[in-house]
Amino acid sequence: MSKMKNTIDPAVNYLLPLAKKAGIETVWDRFAAMKPQCGFGELGVCCRICWKGPCRIDPFGNGPQRGICGADANTIVARNLVRMMAAGAAAHSDHGRHIALTLLEVGEGHAPAYRIKDEQKLRNIAEKLNLAPAGKDIRQVAKEVALASLDDYSRQKRSIPCNWAKVTLTAERVDKLVDLGVMPHNIDAVIAEIMARTHVGCDADAVNVLLGGLKGALADYTGMCLSTELSDVLFGTPEPVVTKANLGVLKEDAVNIAIHGHNPLLSEIICDVALKMNEEAKKAGAKEGINIVGICCTGNEVMMRRGIPLATNYLSQEMAIITGAVDAMVVDVQCIMPALTSVAECFHTEIITTMPENKITGATHVEFREDSAVDSAKKIVEVAIEAFKKRDKRKVNIPDYKQTAIAGFSAEAIVAALSKLDAKDPLKPLIDNIVNGNIQGIALFAGCNNTKATQDDNFITIAKELAKNNVLMLATGCGAGTFAKTGLMTQEATEAYAGESLKAVLTAIGKAAGLNGPLPLVLHMGSCVDNSRAVNVAVAIANKLGVDLDKLPLVASAPELMSEKAVAIGTWAVTLGIPTHIGIVPQIMGSSVVAEFLTEKAKDLLGGYFIVETNPEQAAAKLVAVIKERRKGLGI
Amino acid sequence: MSKMKNTIDPAVNYLLPLAKKAGIETVWDRFAAMKPQCGFGELGVCCRICWKGPCRIDPFGNGPQRGICGADANTIVARNLVRMMAAGAAAHSDHGRHIALTLLEVGEGHAPAYRIKDEQKLRNIAEKLNLAPAGKDIRQVAKEVALASLDDYSRQKRSIPCNWAKVTLTAERVDKLVDLGVMPHNIDAVIAEIMARTHVGCDADAVNVLLGGLKGALADYTGMCLSTELSDVLFGTPEPVVTKANLGVLKEDAVNIAIHGHNPLLSEIICDVALKMNEEAKKAGAKEGINIVGICCTGNEVMMRRGIPLATNYLSQEMAIITGAVDAMVVDVQCIMPALTSVAECFHTEIITTMPENKITGATHVEFREDSAVDSAKKIVEVAIEAFKKRDKRKVNIPDYKQTAIAGFSAEAIVAALSKLDAKDPLKPLIDNIVNGNIQGIALFAGCNNTKATQDDNFITIAKELAKNNVLMLATGCGAGTFAKTGLMTQEATEAYAGESLKAVLTAIGKAAGLNGPLPLVLHMGSCVDNSRAVNVAVAIANKLGVDLDKLPLVASAPELMSEKAVAIGTWAVTLGIPTHIGIVPQIMGSSVVAEFLTEKAKDLLGGYFIVETNPEQAAAKLVAVIKERRKGLGI
Repeated sequence: MSKMKNTIDPAVNYLLPLAKKAGIETVWDRFAAMKPQCGFGELGVCCRICWKGPCRIDPFGNGPQRGICGADANTIVARNLVRMMAAGAAAHSDHGRHIALTLLEVGEGHAPAYRIKDEQKLRNIAEKLNLAPAGKDIRQVAKEVALASLDDYSRQKRSIPCNWAKVTLTAERVDKLVDLGVMPHNIDAVIAEIMARTHVGCDADAVNVLLGGLKGALADYTGMCLSTELSDVLFGTPEPVVTKANLGVLKEDAVNIAIHGHNPLLSEIICDVALKMNEEAKKAGAKEGINIVGICCTGNEVMMRRGIPLATNYLSQEMAIITGAVDAMVVDVQCIMPALTSVAECFHTEIITTMPENKITGATHVEFREDSAVDSAKKIVEVAIEAFKKRDKRKVNIPDYKQTAIAGFSAEAIVAALSKLDAKDPLKPLIDNIVNGNIQGIALFAGCNNTKATQDDNFITIAKELAKNNVLMLATGCGAGTFAKTGLMTQEATEAYAGESLKAVLTAIGKAAGLNGPLPLVLHMGSCVDNSRAVNVAVAIANKLGVDLDKLPLVASAPELMSEKAVAIGTWAVTLGIPTHIGIVPQIMGSSVVAEFLTEKAKDLLGGYFIVETNPEQAAAKLVAVIKERRKGLGI
Repeated sequence: MSKMKNTIDPAVNYLLPLAKKAGIETVWDRFAAMKPQCGFGELGVCCRICWKGPCRIDPFGNGPQRGICGADANTIVARNLVRMMAAGAAAHSDHGRHIALTLLEVGEGHAPAYRIKDEQKLRNIAEKLNLAPAGKDIRQVAKEVALASLDDYSRQKRSIPCNWAKVTLTAERVDKLVDLGVMPHNIDAVIAEIMARTHVGCDADAVNVLLGGLKGALADYTGMCLSTELSDVLFGTPEPVVTKANLGVLKEDAVNIAIHGHNPLLSEIICDVALKMNEEAKKAGAKEGINIVGICCTGNEVMMRRGIPLATNYLSQEMAIITGAVDAMVVDVQCIMPALTSVAECFHTEIITTMPENKITGATHVEFREDSAVDSAKKIVEVAIEAFKKRDKRKVNIPDYKQTAIAGFSAEAIVAALSKLDAKDPLKPLIDNIVNGNIQGIALFAGCNNTKATQDDNFITIAKELAKNNVLMLATGCGAGTFAKTGLMTQEATEAYAGESLKAVLTAIGKAAGLNGPLPLVLHMGSCVDNSRAVNVAVAIANKLGVDLDKLPLVASAPELMSEKAVAIGTWAVTLGIPTHIGIVPQIMGSSVVAEFLTEKAKDLLGGYFIVETNPEQAAAKLVAVIKERRKGLGI
């Protein structure tokens, strides 16, 4: 067996030998050193939830088949898995809470750095949440929407579903979830419930544990959904924007500030402030002033809303520093490698942490507070300019790779584009084309990169195959980063890879929308927290067709997932009825009960289910087959 | 090295050979089979928070020193540890929420099976929470107290501390905790925050992670405190009661129902209902009717409030079934071995799960609902009576071991006893005796059993040594179970083991309180959720002396801990300023930063710190030394 390639990203492949030469350890080195990885952990049969353990089940049946307390492999695997869902839900939902609290501040007239940028969207949300916004002052509406969102973190009556989950799904799905007892009433309480039921000596029925996990995953959905929608209110609803992606977006003659993490509360203000500090950067010798680039989902956020170029996605974040051209990397929460500070030690780069709950040993901490956001941002930009002065030009190696990327396809932007074809009934052209088969189905790409797969390769291989099969493609998170970096978010990609009928539809929409050509092959829907945008589109289609989500020719794929957030997202996608491919073997294979539930039994219960397939060609074939099956089910 | 004994419990030692003969696997068999346990897990350096992993740090420095993302041993150990605290807090707090919601129902006139049993306590609590109860209808007071408690699960303003944490600690401690940023504002939100900050790529500064853990541990305290206090309101504040403990409390001629788990919401109603179904049991052939016995902390709850005998504590729960005399074991939440159903397969015993979030494969599930509590309880007792009819008399082996145990020492009961010496100033005699050295200090025993220690042995060895050194002893949870089973909660034990001056004080109080002899050597303060009772006593003493908790000659010991709840409890004890011994090596030794923080640096920051000592004699010596040091600090 030949050694798996680390990545297909040319910028990374340019930099890796330089890193090696300089003795700089990267994520791929650490992955190689970690092999062979612990087989018990890989199978999910290692239990560390009490100090009688650690326990581990012998997968071959010779050694222990139960932990010391008597928990079997099914219980152990299920508990480990649902705790990942709880953590994923917690991460997304804390982000969402942060946004909701800021919206509340804005509604109350505090947090001067923020304002309501999309008033119409806020009113639409208030309408959806049954808050009767008509005639109310916009700040009052903001307050009411914020409080209704915070209710989803504080309600104690278990019988009342979360507002955001209830109003954003199909009625049929809501009923099903309530019937199954998996509809969350309170995001935090559901996370706590998962932690409680997986405590030693609690829930020891694997399927029951998994049902608790589904509820946690739906809490994740709830937090994501409100996070995305309220971010649009504060920072604007994305519209198509043309920008660039990959490390070639760094500039030799600029103060390069990489913003990395997830929450636009930080990055938006830094962008605002940096624009005004261009002259100071020039005074420090940076001819081109300040160049902000994005990494990971912060990158997606500012790319969608501001056209800020994307430097790279998760797995290659260290590479940005290894270019020697990043003066400051400003991080907030999630998916920030602790390794960044070690890599930065070899350069002048300042790693700046900003959140009190997310520090990194060795980083510079500049606390970011919403009530003094501009001051914090200024300080951060000043640190970057100071660092620029210390940049060692001999160490600068900016790879000459960047691609055009059209981003900004919020659900609203898609509807706006479609409305050029049918102003009165914008979804009609899309649905007509799904029904007539010009568009065979819709696929949402999401999730991370993972050292266990060649970076970006699974995404690209599957997408090209689906394109050929006339599947409309959406992408978020590091998947979106992949497509942006590799030129698949361009009109040219549509010309090159789309099947004929898909191409015709994308061209008709693109031209009507004034794009002078087709829509890009893959529509950039945002950061990983924005997966709810795809649900918005799907629910609109389902409602129009009068069917539930599990009848639609709709699939999801996280071919390179790794994070607990991705585990939560994949699980809610399944729970909403969406067949969901993952391209990394999940750490559940030590339990036949768990594996069967998620890949088979879930289908009967929920309509959605997991498809585990590490080979991207075969994954694509399976996804196409699912879409065909779904079409058949609809009689189209 | 000689093989460690499994237990010093004679009842267990009687039954273990019978189990072996019958081919029944017990927790000790599974422990033996699990050895050698995974060294990475033991050290805490195994990371499974994303699917790039599992990763593990080489403790010898030859292999990987960082996980694939770059997290080092300090980060990994800290994350694993604080997630345990989050789970512990979740378990206790979900229990507390359950009680608070039931109190709300009672206040609103629902939940007819429950009532306000201790009106004065409810009014005292309302007073403490600044709810101005005077003149209000008791149901209104119940509602307001319940809502103020539920506020601690729902408040979104981070700057406002949890009500219960704020009003039950010393003012100085509250200020310190606020200053350190570790005062919880919302139990659930803090649990979610821990899960979020330990997600991949988040908090990577071990000390910062630990501070998040301290906040989680204080959330645990908050949930425990309200759980205990509100349980007293609903079910009565414990008063001294004489009962029996150990498996000899099972009766050959009765329908034996073992109630096991934690939450009195279930067990109290079962006791009520069973009393009324005695005749049905007799009709089924049980001459002595129904015999309810307790296991684990449910056992402590009903022992404290009703004098129900305690069958056994955590590690020997399977033994109850192996007696062949338990007809039904009714369980709710926490510390219930999943192995119970396998053991029960060898007998007629029905394992009855009752909570929707806590099922066990192979058990009979009878859902327990507060709104139809009596019906659920009836059904459960009926199942037990039916099972009794199938009991195989040849398999019955009730060990002839039981000890007298005096339980029921709530803070109020202790004050009531003291008030017989000084009605106006009840704490004065206690404090005078601490100051004059008759009582050298106070020790709280808490926590579980663990297969890594000889069951009960650490507790007993340390307690006898502390007794000799005139240390007043309190106990909760499975520690209390140990002392009850072994006769250390008797007046005779005081006579036998207490140092002279301690004996004199206990005798003076006991006689004044009409006990006709001394107080028992170890005061039973309740279940593991009741550790806040000890804090009540300590805070009263601290306030009276005008010092903070970290100045008192007060120590805690969890010599056989295993659960995440115990990890959380130990951590809040340390955070409140209490030197806390643990007799099991914590799974943190892979990180010098974490180990040093918890055992040394915490002392400067908080006053409290962990003492890790597996040898019980040495542990006792260390605890006595700490008490002496504290006395010196106070100049007494």
